[in-house]
Amino acid sequence: MRMNEGVEWAAHACTVLAPFWPRHGLSLAALAELHGVPAPYMAKQMQRLSAAGLVRTSRGRTGGYALSRAPSEISLWQIARAVDGVMPMFRCTEIRQRGPCGTPRENCTRPCGIAASFAAAEAAYRKALEEVSVADMLEQAMANAGSRDATAVAEWFKSKVTEVPGE
Amino acid sequence: MRMNEGVEWAAHACTVLAPFWPRHGLSLAALAELHGVPAPYMAKQMQRLSAAGLVRTSRGRTGGYALSRAPSEISLWQIARAVDGVMPMFRCTEIRQRGPCGTPRENCTRPCGIAASFAAAEAAYRKALEEVSVADMLEQAMANAGSRDATAVAEWFKSKVTEVPGE
Repeated sequence: MRMNEGVEWAAHACTVLAPFWPRHGLSLAALAELHGVPAPYMAKQMQRLSAAGLVRTSRGRTGGYALSRAPSEISLWQIARAVDGVMPMFRCTEIRQRGPCGTPRENCTRPCGIAASFAAAEAAYRKALEEVSVADMLEQAMANAGSRDATAVAEWFKSKVTEVPGE
Repeated sequence: MRMNEGVEWAAHACTVLAPFWPRHGLSLAALAELHGVPAPYMAKQMQRLSAAGLVRTSRGRTGGYALSRAPSEISLWQIARAVDGVMPMFRCTEIRQRGPCGTPRENCTRPCGIAASFAAAEAAYRKALEEVSVADMLEQAMANAGSRDATAVAEWFKSKVTEVPGE
């Protein structure tokens, strides 16, 4: 199984928006340019984040997207779920009840052991992603970026940042 | 993201084959009947398990499938990977290197923090599934089945079980 590729774009977009929270953000055009991706594709991910309440948007010529909560209060799990949507990964169809040796439905009071094992694994996966916040992602990105020209990056952002009024 | 639905059939098939290891197994027709699924669909999952070395097969009129290792030595992770195949779930495309503020490639000596977070979550998921063996699955299935008519089930299996010579 493969996660929707938009999750990667959405996670990077949230990370990039983090320093501008709470009052400012970036336009769709700036987010698309920053990530080197067509604006309609970027828009799709931002709309999913917006529908999940993770970003807010303002319309018009100077409109843009901003995080709707503090970077420390948005998790990678929330981003993944907002964009990928299809969870849980494993869906039990009660195979144990089928066929000539099936367990009678009335005996199936507990979840099938196979389904329970997948649910436990998915819970561990979810917990790991819940423990990573956008603030953590920003910190990691800054640490990993190393010695690139911070001034040029700051100038680019300065020219693009836009105010996004709260709701 | 959704796991390939064949994983559920494959996990149940391995569980059902467990009591007959090491010398015996069930024909494809019996496995399909047992699970109430068309034989070609069952065959597809069994072929994936066979390609992964988890089951062995014998040909001919009395041919069938048997586990190729002890039930305690086959994990739910191995079954899921054999049938679903597409792992890892998250694939990093190095977005951080793109666009006007991209991190220069030579600075990307460590994995992107976002990719590293997904990798850690997937490792937790994998570990949870590695800790569940087919022997565990059989034990859970027996415990959950409760008071169904064990004699009828035993009779059905007795009529279907077939010897599957080792490789």
